[in-house]
This record gives sequence, C-alpha cells and structure tokens, in this order.
Amino acid sequence: MTYKVGILGLGTVGTGTAQILSDPSGRHPLLTELEIAQVGVRSLDKPRAVDVPHSLFTTDLDAIVSHPDLDIIVELIGGVEPARSLILKAIAHGKHIVTANKAVISRHGDEIFDAANEKGVYVMLEAAVGGGIPVIQPLKQALGVNRIKRVTGIVNGTTNYILTRMKTEGADFADVLADAQRLGYAEADPTADVDGLDAADKIAILASLAFGGRIRLEDVHCEGIRHISSTEIDYAEKLGFTIKLLAIAQEDIPENSSDGTPQKLSLKVHPTLLPKSHPLASVDGVFNAILVEGDPLGQVMFFGPGAGAGATASAVVSDILNIAAILKTETEPIPHPLLSCTHQHFCAIAPMEDSVTRFYVRVKTQDSSGVIGQLGTCFGNHDVSLESIVQIGLSDKLAEIVLVTHHVREGDFRAALDSISKLSAVAEISSVIRVW
Amino acid sequence: MTYKVGILGLGTVGTGTAQILSDPSGRHPLLTELEIAQVGVRSLDKPRAVDVPHSLFTTDLDAIVSHPDLDIIVELIGGVEPARSLILKAIAHGKHIVTANKAVISRHGDEIFDAANEKGVYVMLEAAVGGGIPVIQPLKQALGVNRIKRVTGIVNGTTNYILTRMKTEGADFADVLADAQRLGYAEADPTADVDGLDAADKIAILASLAFGGRIRLEDVHCEGIRHISSTEIDYAEKLGFTIKLLAIAQEDIPENSSDGTPQKLSLKVHPTLLPKSHPLASVDGVFNAILVEGDPLGQVMFFGPGAGAGATASAVVSDILNIAAILKTETEPIPHPLLSCTHQHFCAIAPMEDSVTRFYVRVKTQDSSGVIGQLGTCFGNHDVSLESIVQIGLSDKLAEIVLVTHHVREGDFRAALDSISKLSAVAEISSVIRVW
Repeated sequence: MTYKVGILGLGTVGTGTAQILSDPSGRHPLLTELEIAQVGVRSLDKPRAVDVPHSLFTTDLDAIVSHPDLDIIVELIGGVEPARSLILKAIAHGKHIVTANKAVISRHGDEIFDAANEKGVYVMLEAAVGGGIPVIQPLKQALGVNRIKRVTGIVNGTTNYILTRMKTEGADFADVLADAQRLGYAEADPTADVDGLDAADKIAILASLAFGGRIRLEDVHCEGIRHISSTEIDYAEKLGFTIKLLAIAQEDIPENSSDGTPQKLSLKVHPTLLPKSHPLASVDGVFNAILVEGDPLGQVMFFGPGAGAGATASAVVSDILNIAAILKTETEPIPHPLLSCTHQHFCAIAPMEDSVTRFYVRVKTQDSSGVIGQLGTCFGNHDVSLESIVQIGLSDKLAEIVLVTHHVREGDFRAALDSISKLSAVAEISSVIRVW
Repeated sequence: MTYKVGILGLGTVGTGTAQILSDPSGRHPLLTELEIAQVGVRSLDKPRAVDVPHSLFTTDLDAIVSHPDLDIIVELIGGVEPARSLILKAIAHGKHIVTANKAVISRHGDEIFDAANEKGVYVMLEAAVGGGIPVIQPLKQALGVNRIKRVTGIVNGTTNYILTRMKTEGADFADVLADAQRLGYAEADPTADVDGLDAADKIAILASLAFGGRIRLEDVHCEGIRHISSTEIDYAEKLGFTIKLLAIAQEDIPENSSDGTPQKLSLKVHPTLLPKSHPLASVDGVFNAILVEGDPLGQVMFFGPGAGAGATASAVVSDILNIAAILKTETEPIPHPLLSCTHQHFCAIAPMEDSVTRFYVRVKTQDSSGVIGQLGTCFGNHDVSLESIVQIGLSDKLAEIVLVTHHVREGDFRAALDSISKLSAVAEISSVIRVW
C-alpha cells in the first residue's frame, strides 16, 4: 500500500521535504510507503535539488488538489491566498492536509477545520509553529490530560536572533536588522517578524490547542521589538534580566463551575524583561522554545530550531507519517480524536485592561528635587505600586529614571502613564516594557 | 463507549493517575470515556487520597490482569517481579499495557514486545523515561523521520539534584546524598540512582526507539557519581564546565550501504564535564532533559520534571488516552505502526575501546621538575594527545596536576593511564572524568 503525496511548493521547506521522502534509508520504515506523486511549482524550468522525476512537476496546483489518486496534500507555498483556497479545494476532494502555514491557519482555521471535520479528513500543522520542534503533537496527544494554565514561547527566530545580537554585541536595532536581512534571517519587508505578527499567528494556534477552543487572531495583543533600544538591553542586563519577544497564552480567570463563568484567557505578544534564571532566558539566536505549564504536570519546555529547511521538513514529514499510520489502521470514518480538531466554541478572552503584569519604565525628567516623589505619588494615585525607582543617569540637564512596578492592572497602569506624561517635570517617557 | 482501566499499584504515581482520571473537567474530553474499573493494592486498609469507590479495590492483581471486562492495564507497582509476570499475563489476556517501569522494559522488553505484537496489543511507556516530559511519543511518532545520530539525557533526578547542590553549595557528595535521602529525593538504598543503573535502563529504552532496534541492557557502559568530589566540581567550574551525569546513545559508526556494515552504537552513562554553554548544562535540580540530534532536523531538546506524582501521572494518562483514541478508530487488527514496537534485530554495538572521547584527569605527583614532561610523554606514547596540563596545587609535598585530553580512543587512554600509574613520580590518580 503506498500513500500518494502531492507537494504544493518547492521552496526551502518543500525541497527539504522532498529530500527526506526521496531518501528513506535509516529513517522510519513507514516512509517507504509514502510516494511523491505530484509536485506543484511556479516555474518548470528552475533547476531543483531534489531527486524527483521532472514528469511529476506541474504548475497546475488546482489539478494536484483535485487529483483522484492523491491521498495527502502538503501545502508549502505559504501566504494566505491561494494557499487557503487550495487547502479548501483539497479538503473538498477528500484529501488530508499537511501544512506549515501559520498565517492561513490563524486566520482561516475555523473554515478549514469545519470543512475537514465535515469531510472526515485531517489537517496537520506541526511545521506551522516552532519549526522542527515537536510541540503541536504533544499538545494534541499528550499534554491535554493536564489543565493547561499557560503557554509561553519564543516562536519567532528573526526577532530572537536580533535581540540576541543586540545583547551580545551592544549593537543598535537598525544595524542588526540590516545585517539580519543581508544574511537571510529577516525578510526585505520584516514587518511580520519584527512587529510580532508572525508570533501572534503562532500563539493563536498554540492557544487553540492548549485551551481546546477557537481563537480569533484579533484577540491577540501584539507588540513587536522596533522600540527596543540598546539602552534598554543594557539596563535590563544590569537589572538581571534579558529581553525576549514572548508569545503568551494564559488563563487569567479560571472556569467557575459553581456559577458557570467560563475560563478567560489573555493572548499577548510583546517584548519582556525575563529574569536570567528563567528557562527561556537562555534560548538565543534563531532557536525557538515553548514552555507549557499545567496541572498536575508542572512545567515542560520544548527547544529547537524554529526554522530552516531540514528542521521544518522534519516536522512536515512527521505529519505525513502520522496520517499514513492512521490510514493504515483506520477503517471506520471515525476521526482519530486526538488528531482532529473538533472544538466548536470560541475561547473567552479576558479584557486587556484587567490583565495583570509588571512593567519597566524609563523616563527622562527635569533634574529637580522631588521628581522621584512626584512619579511615585502619581503612580500610587492609580493603584500602581512600585518595586524600585532609580535615577540612573543625567544628560543634557535631564535625569534618566528607571522604575519597575509590582504586579499591576493594565488599565490602571495605562491611566498612570497618561498622568505621568502630563507632569511638567516629565520630558519624555522613553521606554515601557513588560516584566515577567 | 467506555474504556475500562485497571490500575496496578496506588503509590505516588498510581494516586496521581487516579486523581487525573477521577477529575476530568478542564482536560481533554476523551478522558470522560475512561473508567477506573479496578485498582490493585497491597493493603485494603490503607487510607487513599483518591476519589475511587472502595469496592473497586482488590489485593488480587492476577484477577485484575485477567478480568474479562478490562481494556487497559496500567502497571505502576515498579520493580521487576511480579510486574513482568503481571504484564505478560495481561497481554496474554488481550489487555493493552501502560507502564512507568523502566526496569522491566529495559530487561524484558524483548519478551514483552514479542508477546504484545503476537497478541496485537500496545505497550506504552511514556512515563518510564523523563517523568512528565513527552519524549517517548515524539521519538516514536515524529523524530523517526530523521536519521538520529545521538540522544543525550539527564534522566535521573536524584543524581542531578545531588550534583546541582554540590555545585551551588560547594558541599561533599556524602553530605548531599544524606540530605537527599532525608528529603525523599534519594532512596534508602540509593544504588540504582547513584551508580547510574536507573539512567542506564532509560538510555537503553531511548536508544531502542531512536535507533529502531533492540538493545541489551548489558551493552550500556555504566558509571555513577560516587567518585565525584567537591574538588572536581570546583575545578570543573574553573575550567568552564559543569559536571552532569549524562546518558548517551550515539552512532559511533554509520551504516555503510556499499559493503553492508551496519550502524554501530555506543551506549554510555557516566559523569561528564559539560561546557557551561551546552543546553544541558543549565538543567538543574530534579529536572530532566533529553537532547536529540538528527539529520536533517538538527537538535531538539525536551525539558521538564523527571519525577513526581503529577508529572509522571500526566505521562501515564497520556498513554491511556492514546490507546483509547486508537481503540475508537481501529477496527482492523493492524497495529498502529508508530505506536507498536516491532523491530526484531538487535542494534550493533561498537566496542568500548574504540569509543572516542575527551578526558579530564587529576593526578598527585612528586613535586619535582620534569613531572609534567613525563606525563605528557607517557600519554603521547599511547597516542593520547593533551589539550592542557596544569599544576594547580601543592600540598603535603605533592603536586596536584589537572589535564584535559583531546579526543582520544578509549583503549589508548586506558593503556596510557595504566602506564601513568606506574610512574614512580605519580602518587595517585585522583580522578578521571569524561569531557564532552
């Protein structure tokens, strides 16, 4: 029995995928039952680093997804369209789907999973989050026996690479970004990575799996790293922190079974001052890591390459393998309850202003006595309690003050900042970053 | 449809398992289709912290494993017998097995898996290695698309706890061991942990899955931490290393497809000087971590609690869940090719003397000129090349010399050590530890 696979896209990941499938020796024996039957590309003339007969190549992707002989469609073209349409068409034709496309899943997951459940096919997405790290499967098939409380990830390699180099070299954001683009770690238009949008797609997917419900991408609060300066990296370091772009999905309000209030989540992507002792603090460069906390398990962390041909292809092929394994044994049209995503309800989201966190703030003020007192009082008036407030510098007659709050309510903090900004002694609020 | 579960043993892990199963809200919905039907205990009178009717308790474990209504037997009594016999009897009666028992699987895995494959039932063992960390499932169901080159683990929490405290407190092994026993992190008879035997059981299991073949426990070279002194911890620290008990399964000799030579592995448990920058170096206390390296994935690491009721129970229940999921969909008696272990051949093991590694050696010698030269020459005569050799101390007229070799062949190194020990200038070879 051979399972016929159609690959859409032969870029970096598609090439890596085809290379694994064409070279099964020394790998799981089930791989020998997988056959690349069709490869969809944009250009038939481009030379390809894969051992696949040219007769299997076509530019007609629609023909691939409706091809009667194919069992599994592997979507590796990326982007929202035509990927979404091709996936839906493939599902309509009874094909199982393997994808690495976090953008499509986070925006159109509802539609895609509804169609897949209706048709009785699987949609697998290990490669969509965390590159080669097996994290989707553990969330679906193992960690769900826990009550998950929080998922925290460094899930964007570009921003982690930039922040790591800013830390180790003391370099400026713009310089490191330019170098990252030159080296291929960042796109020509780096927005999706640098502004946190890619990380937001990914935490929406992780949250959906961890908390067993649908997530709207617009419910993810998203801040990127553009405003992180070498000054902040330096001060954070001195305070015993490292700055990471974290993607966080957490239970803010637990389910109340007595009055029926549902669990409420917050979903956030933002730079964070992370204590150096935290497991995620030592995850550097293009590596990703996802930390899952649940009851009664405690904490587990998955670490590995977040991108790259080999890593991502490993995840793609593991999904193809899992579908083939199920197809071998499954004769009833009952979907495997751990592989399919059948939750219907949307997760309830806690209002952002009720979210509780700590903040780091750097302000420039007039260098006059009583300024620290004014700041403290102003924050206090808004129920924002301060852990520390230190004048760390003086330049051009402006005092530079760094403060770290205790845990505070987001709404209160924003109101306090607003008042602070109106104080005549305050020249500039230079930086505001959340603290773990 | 309810899947009936018989639990053998209600110790720490059994209790944690029953607690999860009795309290499914907020967890994966499939858990509601699992029912604790029988619980096997040694004493019916002992008060139990589980919400399970006393009528389900029995001391007759043989009756449980042959009970016609049960689908899944969860073996949590530990030890080799009667666990092995009960598992085999359960299999003979067509029950699926979930176990946390690394001792039984590493010694009798052959027999158990032969019986299970013959009968068409599953034997799941996520909880046997790495406590709550999902690592068995990723190895079986995802990482196998790679050619795995090496698996390295900190898989014994007791020894990691001891080494961590020796490092942070500068304490002696004997004192920390005594304290660990007092706190319950080490057994009254600590041999299995301290002498590396538990870690050997675990790496045998990991190696079998990673390299797709059977492993004989006696092929695991095993050294524990009894000879690690606070002196070594200190010197290692100064040299930029931390000392960890590592369990390593690696490909020493790749398969040669042209002449048919099989892949050859080495399996080792030993204390190791690990560079502080290595991902495993920051894994402290009772945490475990397993690092898997393969082609084309690269490196992934799994980190989490290696023991404890909640953590291990999470792994046990995830296995029960996975069996239930398969039973829902599987109507053909074809075993799921990723969940069953059907490899028949034994992995070929490379001879220990051909193993290549680096070594740290501390010697005490007469304090005379030329001693360092003698040592260097003696090592050189045995093809052991030195990276560094430093006299670090002097006491009671004996010089204390620490040396680190380059990569050397084990056989050559042992011969060199033997010659060194015979030099008249050498008073004592105080310590020999492998270096990463």
